Amino acid sequence: MSAADKPKGATRGAVPDIDDLATRILNGERRALARAITLVESGRADHREATTRLLDLLARENRQSLRIGLSGTPGVGKSTFIESFGMMLIAAGLRVAVLAVDPSSTRSGGSILGDKTRMEHLSREKNAFIRPSPSQTHLGGVGRRSREAVALCEAAGFDVVLIETVGVGQSETVVSEMSDLFLLLLAPAGGDELQGVKRGIMEMADIILVNKADGDLKPAATRTCADYAGALRLLRKRPQDPDGYPKALMVSAATRDGLEAAWDDMQMLADWRRENGHWQRRRGEQARYWFGEDVRQALLARLETPWAQGRMADLSEEVAEGRVTPAAAAKDLLAGLGVG
Amino acid sequence: MSAADKPKGATRGAVPDIDDLATRILNGERRALARAITLVESGRADHREATTRLLDLLARENRQSLRIGLSGTPGVGKSTFIESFGMMLIAAGLRVAVLAVDPSSTRSGGSILGDKTRMEHLSREKNAFIRPSPSQTHLGGVGRRSREAVALCEAAGFDVVLIETVGVGQSETVVSEMSDLFLLLLAPAGGDELQGVKRGIMEMADIILVNKADGDLKPAATRTCADYAGALRLLRKRPQDPDGYPKALMVSAATRDGLEAAWDDMQMLADWRRENGHWQRRRGEQARYWFGEDVRQALLARLETPWAQGRMADLSEEVAEGRVTPAAAAKDLLAGLGVG
Repeated sequence: MSAADKPKGATRGAVPDIDDLATRILNGERRALARAITLVESGRADHREATTRLLDLLARENRQSLRIGLSGTPGVGKSTFIESFGMMLIAAGLRVAVLAVDPSSTRSGGSILGDKTRMEHLSREKNAFIRPSPSQTHLGGVGRRSREAVALCEAAGFDVVLIETVGVGQSETVVSEMSDLFLLLLAPAGGDELQGVKRGIMEMADIILVNKADGDLKPAATRTCADYAGALRLLRKRPQDPDGYPKALMVSAATRDGLEAAWDDMQMLADWRRENGHWQRRRGEQARYWFGEDVRQALLARLETPWAQGRMADLSEEVAEGRVTPAAAAKDLLAGLGVG
Repeated sequence: MSAADKPKGATRGAVPDIDDLATRILNGERRALARAITLVESGRADHREATTRLLDLLARENRQSLRIGLSGTPGVGKSTFIESFGMMLIAAGLRVAVLAVDPSSTRSGGSILGDKTRMEHLSREKNAFIRPSPSQTHLGGVGRRSREAVALCEAAGFDVVLIETVGVGQSETVVSEMSDLFLLLLAPAGGDELQGVKRGIMEMADIILVNKADGDLKPAATRTCADYAGALRLLRKRPQDPDGYPKALMVSAATRDGLEAAWDDMQMLADWRRENGHWQRRRGEQARYWFGEDVRQALLARLETPWAQGRMADLSEEVAEGRVTPAAAAKDLLAGLGVG
């Protein structure tokens, strides 16, 4: 993988020829894919326009990848897992894309997710495509842009799209809305730490993977896996699961033990969902969700212009000092936006 | 308190004379207050316009109540607490308003909060004003309307405004954004149930009240209170707290034991915050927050017209069936709204 995967500033210039770009993406050209993702991440209105047309052209082919969401807090070994799991898929003849969704990347000034130096072998494979999380220039848009990047990877013919996130804010929910399967990666821990996992994430997970099940940590991993298997049994049965799912498994990203078995389980679950209508139904629900999000974000984007930001800051001061009520200040701003 | 506190359909007619309404509210006329709250809850554009002007007129007087947020799950005795605590405040010569914030009231077809029949004595007091949660006719607006109802109660000269909620969704956050103090009411429980309280709420609470500290439950209440006191000590110290706060106390709404002591603590905390600048700073931050919310809600309100709702439903179907991409459907809807 070359530096050309993310051509810096490439979209500062003219809008690319969309028909040509679509053809090249459908041909699986990585540079075209990278270019298109940069276009998706742009805040410019003409880029947005072009993106919409591009996605429409690509959607006609209706190509589907297996989209796997992967969450885990720092330290559980996400990068090592993606490296090992990705290499295993590539050895099986599959093409693998890795995207990162990191709503915190503005604050940290750059994402640690999707860092290619942490996926040394995978990042050199011609059948792998790794893209870090975009930096957030616009509020609330990270989800939409990531979702559209996933759609581009699907059009480019990747068999598996891994979407990596950390448990920050609503990031797991956002990732689950663009995934077919959702994996939660955990490290071995004492049983009393089980409560540290948010209930909402437990309910989202299709497969819990207890990583680092090797060497000294093997006994702890075995206990942790049993604890989570027990916790999963307490959750309400979901219609989209066959018997035995969601499940907890042990893996070792370092020794690669358990990765094949985990992949078998993922495929089994995906097949069952396809055969029982859950796959297509969920994809439909997700499309509805993103339609609603697109509309809401577009309306709220009017607050992101320099004029709106400046006026909001001024009015906020007046409101905080009690010189004007929130309602009157809102009316003032909205009139300035031509919405009043 | 008479049925006139919530004149049904009163705002279906003409917009009332706002100057006259403001004068009557400032004179403490309960019917005027009830009328104004109904106006605040209305979704009509001309009512919104009138509300903004009314709030502006009233804000010039800069009257402040002690606004106390109160959260607790069903069964902890919230209504009994409000009845006993409210009667105690009234016996001390204070005027008390009770408002309810219930984001779930659409689904349940009416709020169980602020139910006057559960506050039998308080609801008959001339110095008390009780108003149930508005039913949600508009998405996302329940917070703003409640916040403005609080401002109306302040203008009407109530000394204390109690804002009651249950722990549904974001309701505690919404209530804390309109409160000076935040109380969490709990029932006695086994120590292992402590984890059932969401961490976010613990961090929001200024005073935790363990209710039902009477009779057979007294020992359990004592243990529960000690458990929560211990848990509060583990939380990070907040700048807005003097030594010893946040704290956990035992009360019995039934026997009224501990209510006077709890009220003393609330006043002490409020005084300290006033003297140390935290009170005014927090009020300023809250005003900023509501200004931002007002603006966002006004922008999103464009999706609530019958036309927008119908068009969104149609496009959602097409999106779910894969006949159009979310981005293209969003563009279509936004063009129809004149936003594109």
